[in-house]
Amino acid sequence: MRFFSDNAAPVCSEVLDALARVNVLDTAYDGDRWSQQLDGAFSDLFGTAVRALWVPTGTAANSLALAALCPPHGGVVCHRDAHINVDECGAPEFYTHGAKLLTAEGPGAKLTPDAIRAVIDPIRNDVHQVQPHAISITNATEYGLAYTPDEVAAIGDLAKARELGLHMDGARFANAVAHLGCHPGDVTWRAGVDALSFGFVKNGGMSAEALIFFQPELADATLYRRKRAGLLASKGRYLAAQLLAMLEGDLWLAHGRAANAGARLLALAAGDRLVHPVEANEVFLKVRAEEAESLRALGFDFYDWGVGEARLVISWDQREAAIRPLADAIAAL
Amino acid sequence: MRFFSDNAAPVCSEVLDALARVNVLDTAYDGDRWSQQLDGAFSDLFGTAVRALWVPTGTAANSLALAALCPPHGGVVCHRDAHINVDECGAPEFYTHGAKLLTAEGPGAKLTPDAIRAVIDPIRNDVHQVQPHAISITNATEYGLAYTPDEVAAIGDLAKARELGLHMDGARFANAVAHLGCHPGDVTWRAGVDALSFGFVKNGGMSAEALIFFQPELADATLYRRKRAGLLASKGRYLAAQLLAMLEGDLWLAHGRAANAGARLLALAAGDRLVHPVEANEVFLKVRAEEAESLRALGFDFYDWGVGEARLVISWDQREAAIRPLADAIAAL
Amino acid sequence: MRFFSDNAAPVCSEVLDALARVNVLDTAYDGDRWSQQLDGAFSDLFGTAVRALWVPTGTAANSLALAALCPPHGGVVCHRDAHINVDECGAPEFYTHGAKLLTAEGPGAKLTPDAIRAVIDPIRNDVHQVQPHAISITNATEYGLAYTPDEVAAIGDLAKARELGLHMDGARFANAVAHLGCHPGDVTWRAGVDALSFGFVKNGGMSAEALIFFQPELADATLYRRKRAGLLASKGRYLAAQLLAMLEGDLWLAHGRAANAGARLLALAAGDRLVHPVEANEVFLKVRAEEAESLRALGFDFYDWGVGEARLVISWDQREAAIRPLADAIAAL
Amino acid sequence: MRFFSDNAAPVCSEVLDALARVNVLDTAYDGDRWSQQLDGAFSDLFGTAVRALWVPTGTAANSLALAALCPPHGGVVCHRDAHINVDECGAPEFYTHGAKLLTAEGPGAKLTPDAIRAVIDPIRNDVHQVQPHAISITNATEYGLAYTPDEVAAIGDLAKARELGLHMDGARFANAVAHLGCHPGDVTWRAGVDALSFGFVKNGGMSAEALIFFQPELADATLYRRKRAGLLASKGRYLAAQLLAMLEGDLWLAHGRAANAGARLLALAAGDRLVHPVEANEVFLKVRAEEAESLRALGFDFYDWGVGEARLVISWDQREAAIRPLADAIAAL
Repeated sequence: MRFFSDNAAPVCSEVLDALARVNVLDTAYDGDRWSQQLDGAFSDLFGTAVRALWVPTGTAANSLALAALCPPHGGVVCHRDAHINVDECGAPEFYTHGAKLLTAEGPGAKLTPDAIRAVIDPIRNDVHQVQPHAISITNATEYGLAYTPDEVAAIGDLAKARELGLHMDGARFANAVAHLGCHPGDVTWRAGVDALSFGFVKNGGMSAEALIFFQPELADATLYRRKRAGLLASKGRYLAAQLLAMLEGDLWLAHGRAANAGARLLALAAGDRLVHPVEANEVFLKVRAEEAESLRALGFDFYDWGVGEARLVISWDQREAAIRPLADAIAAL
Repeated sequence: MRFFSDNAAPVCSEVLDALARVNVLDTAYDGDRWSQQLDGAFSDLFGTAVRALWVPTGTAANSLALAALCPPHGGVVCHRDAHINVDECGAPEFYTHGAKLLTAEGPGAKLTPDAIRAVIDPIRNDVHQVQPHAISITNATEYGLAYTPDEVAAIGDLAKARELGLHMDGARFANAVAHLGCHPGDVTWRAGVDALSFGFVKNGGMSAEALIFFQPELADATLYRRKRAGLLASKGRYLAAQLLAMLEGDLWLAHGRAANAGARLLALAAGDRLVHPVEANEVFLKVRAEEAESLRALGFDFYDWGVGEARLVISWDQREAAIRPLADAIAAL
Repeated sequence: MRFFSDNAAPVCSEVLDALARVNVLDTAYDGDRWSQQLDGAFSDLFGTAVRALWVPTGTAANSLALAALCPPHGGVVCHRDAHINVDECGAPEFYTHGAKLLTAEGPGAKLTPDAIRAVIDPIRNDVHQVQPHAISITNATEYGLAYTPDEVAAIGDLAKARELGLHMDGARFANAVAHLGCHPGDVTWRAGVDALSFGFVKNGGMSAEALIFFQPELADATLYRRKRAGLLASKGRYLAAQLLAMLEGDLWLAHGRAANAGARLLALAAGDRLVHPVEANEVFLKVRAEEAESLRALGFDFYDWGVGEARLVISWDQREAAIRPLADAIAAL
Repeated sequence: MRFFSDNAAPVCSEVLDALARVNVLDTAYDGDRWSQQLDGAFSDLFGTAVRALWVPTGTAANSLALAALCPPHGGVVCHRDAHINVDECGAPEFYTHGAKLLTAEGPGAKLTPDAIRAVIDPIRNDVHQVQPHAISITNATEYGLAYTPDEVAAIGDLAKARELGLHMDGARFANAVAHLGCHPGDVTWRAGVDALSFGFVKNGGMSAEALIFFQPELADATLYRRKRAGLLASKGRYLAAQLLAMLEGDLWLAHGRAANAGARLLALAAGDRLVHPVEANEVFLKVRAEEAESLRALGFDFYDWGVGEARLVISWDQREAAIRPLADAIAAL
């Protein structure tokens, strides 16, 4: 009865089956027939020509994206609580060769044009200050909020006006799209996103994430950076197969919907305890320490989130029967 | 009938089975019960206390090892034909933040103390010149030669005398040990090796290599570098399981022996055509362009290696029946 | 009648004379007889064995110091308004290869142990978060406040307890020591400072700052970093001579006192308009836009500092007669 | 009687006088009236619109130029004996964030299109190998040879055809131009050079070199890199003044001619002992150890250059009377 991380969940059978299917002789690295299908498969999904690269982690996807959008002497605006700022051990700084994360504020780890302007407008346009070159937003956010297409487009317009690149960390992109009910293109390239870290591992995958470039030419140098970072798997077909299996029949979306549904169950039970609206698969609760202990005593596993809060994460494979007991326990607190 | 790369080979069933076995809930990253076994399992194998980290690629293992052994302003002595110098797109430079590869010469891509001294002795001990901090050797070498324990120890002694770290790129370590018939500790830590990139993917694995530190404290900062490089898989148990499956019953060694045996078959047929002694799973042949074409016309697939040479690589899964036809064709040239 | 920057001031005659004195044949780089005197001269000044390196800018001194104290995957705690964070275009990130500045808060750009703990205590001790490795404080601060020996020692104690290095950006160290009236060792090494950027250019010098290591062994790798950064002047004697001239007869301190005295003149005139206490050579005033304009109309030149504030900086060469008119004009506002 | 380095020479009086002339109040950094004249002054000299930046060292100029021409994952072709490869402690790797120097061969440290092609033609056009992005040549070379306009143009044509940037390390550019008797534009931008490190310090300057961009837009990002590297002097007018003084009346060229003339004196005396033709201010002699000792016993100071060779360097300020005794001593060996 664990609710501490969607990274702890197992891998779905479709992904495991796909590994067996590609377990035949083929070309090394990304020259195999499955890796070669990625551009097409993701272009179909997004409804525009994209370049799609497999990478082993979301941190790698984020960092490669930022390196494509920001020079070493530049800055990337992101939320103070963004994963790239607080949970990646300086990976963006490593890949960008020292670009600076310029942190903005906003409830629920969500940025707005105003919040971004509050960071970039005071920057003097001289060589003494790091100039902004990109914006990075997380959808769904680190607190489980989804940016709507309009919200992204407002940031996209600002990015365009200021000649900034726009990256979306989509570690939980599936959950966001499942919540929004929109076309995946609506909340990305149609809204001005240049690069997307499209997460699959938290959503039932094993070891492959997708880095999507909506400005296809950004992929050119990124292919070198991917190799140079030791990310170019020598048997790439085992990564490509995972992504293709998740796209097949929109499995990624079904998994996202399932996890979201579980989170809504908890949200209904939580009522006033909710710290943030529940728009993805994460539920943040106000609980006193003794309440948290009582839930744990019942066998429920989760992280404290600062003082007086708990984070509950629903995984793709948790069905109502597994979640209901926690919902009941929360309601009974 | 492909002999162009051991990276093109499929994954062995033991590894695939292991993925299914760990497909249960566990902790994220490297906190799971399998990742936690790696230090012990590799310490048992090597007969000394080691730290063992999974990483997705050999390039990542090499680069992390070099970053642990050499500061950004230092240099690493390696062979001019070393994989780290010519086939990793500058990954060592990326991970070390710009350390310099100081290239030495030697037949068969093999270094000797004399060859290393020829590089480092002329370096003035002043701040204008990059000072050597480490040596990297490849065992088996890029041309399929195995360093014996004595040969490694001679380099290890030099490294110790000059206060240089010693790294071994063991992308084909299994083939080297299978050839040498020695204990894996004899050709590594007992001979002065500080860090080993222990390859499994070419040898039947899927997506996990091992980085072994014989100086365990070198692992401490490396754990941060691994995360910072986007290499810390969120579901690490699927990497750990691959390594453990390969260690089980010395499967890694059996695979190495099998591939070596296949290469010897070709070597016997090749006779005077051999460019290098065959001590691993690679065979380099002198062949004229029209001879290479005639072999390809028979359905054999391989890389040309410069002008007038061909490289044939035997994979862990190729048995005599699959190799004999090529041996016969070579003999008949 | 300019009060906008001490960087705009001319060079003192003693420094210019020193350039002429060393204008003879000598060894290149830092092998000359004057560069070789720096360790001794600064050791005498500080009353302990130090290593002293000339560098061309304060940004270079700061960045080399931080690179000596923090690995690429680490973090440096500094004030949000610190020069290293907002006015050096990411130089610390460049020299440290991407270390992260962890910004703390505090009035007058001054840090306290509490403010530092508020930043570092919440950092989880795991590989996902950048771990702090150093603290950097500025004395006098960016707003002209001086840390007392006790204040530095309190931070030094915290640094020691947490195994963090301690750097002091002393772009206006002379002004701070002049204000404090203490021995320069009291506010540095005796209080736990490991490295000091000792500024001379703002204080009458031309093109040489000193980087002082109170942990002498930190200089060893720094000598390589200085060369590697293109900072090792080929005719180093012209930098060393500037520093020696400023140390001669404590000229640096006399200049600091003179500038401070000028600032006090303005402070007395400013009364309630002062934003910060005046403890160095900078005066921050609350002035309305039209008041600032009226001062400028009288020929006084200075920077606005955000909305409703102005910064006035007194240089080493400005005497009372030059400052009195501005003091009168402020009093008359 | 020192002939070991032109870095050991004093500074010419015109440069010292210029320092005194600019010793007045002006704007900080490069906003002053002298720094603002550099673009115009060097554009006049070269006969085309250039951007000209002062920097404190030749290593800084070279490294900034290479960072402008080559991405972190790229390579720069240079001679194995190039200063950037053997005497800058990895500065190019630092500034480019790990780009690789791809070393070519050639007598006298001089490159030819053939020598460059021998390096770049074998590079596979895939992500595993560092791709060339730039060429760097040194004029005059490290062995005192001058590239003629035609020789540079041949390399420039190759660079253009392969879409490579072309950098010239002109630490001794004055000596080269003095030897060639050509317009400085003939051997730079008219021959395809994109960026020039124009040396002044060895040639009578004190602490300022010029980085010239013939592709003016390359300067834009370089201005940020210069600041970020701690190279942006806060009192830039003291660097600008040096460069302007050296351009005045073509003083740089007069100094180059004077030093070359001295070298020719020695060359005439050396006869068959010459290792390389003498086309600048360096003379490389074959001398036995005991011969070198006998010269030193007479009071002549110089560096051995490997076994059996000596390097003699003439500085801008050494006149015939000072050189003749050495010429006589060499002739008398």
